[in-house]
Amino acid sequence: MDDSIKREIIKLRSESNIAYVASVNEAGFPQTKAMLVLEHDSIQTQYFSTNWSSKRVQQFLRNPRASVYYCNEAEFKGALFTGSMEVCRDHDTKALLWREGFEMYYPKGVDDEDYCVYKFTADTVNYYHGLSNVTFQL
Amino acid sequence: MDDSIKREIIKLRSESNIAYVASVNEAGFPQTKAMLVLEHDSIQTQYFSTNWSSKRVQQFLRNPRASVYYCNEAEFKGALFTGSMEVCRDHDTKALLWREGFEMYYPKGVDDEDYCVYKFTADTVNYYHGLSNVTFQL
Repeated sequence: MDDSIKREIIKLRSESNIAYVASVNEAGFPQTKAMLVLEHDSIQTQYFSTNWSSKRVQQFLRNPRASVYYCNEAEFKGALFTGSMEVCRDHDTKALLWREGFEMYYPKGVDDEDYCVYKFTADTVNYYHGLSNVTFQL
Repeated sequence: MDDSIKREIIKLRSESNIAYVASVNEAGFPQTKAMLVLEHDSIQTQYFSTNWSSKRVQQFLRNPRASVYYCNEAEFKGALFTGSMEVCRDHDTKALLWREGFEMYYPKGVDDEDYCVYKFTADTVNYYHGLSNVTFQL
């Protein structure tokens, strides 16, 4: 991947508070939902916190095919990462994402059974800016 | 559907400039992209303009399963419509969506071969606001 485009993608991602995370439901329909951007340890790996009891967790357990989309509509640019979603319930991954204030949703803390983490691993990223549009293997 | 929720969904949609339109690609992965909101003639039907030459047109011709998502992150609300996407190339539908300025992209006007229209028909809508989360058949 071209270094300047890689920098643009990383900048777009670091400026985004929200990512649009997509799954495929039981009937084969795509489902998008906004999620808070918390942590990513490389261009390929991105983490989100969620509830074990949510419908989407079941979708990803059945079908891990996923995408994560970041966009800046004002500047007409976007990065669409496509790959697979793992649902993590181990202490270390959950501790990595834990933030002050999560107690409000998960009263038992990091090991609350309803708290879990999506670990997304991208295979490709499509990046567009204005009329340029490129896809890279990761 | 409860009338007050229907009004909330219509309000959210009418305040959104951008919708997140999702398809399923050839390999079965969900793909989301921001699109400009132009026109919707009922709660069930929504239109978007696009290029016949785009990758996504081919995805929808092969697999019409789609979703259209509107959200207001500041107020933590969103509406996810799930249904099917039709790719329209007939003069009347194309004329319905045509806007001043489109000549820049489609120099031949309404009947430019590269200009086409997505007509999305929803079967269900999921609406969340804060902790409430409901799904309706349409």
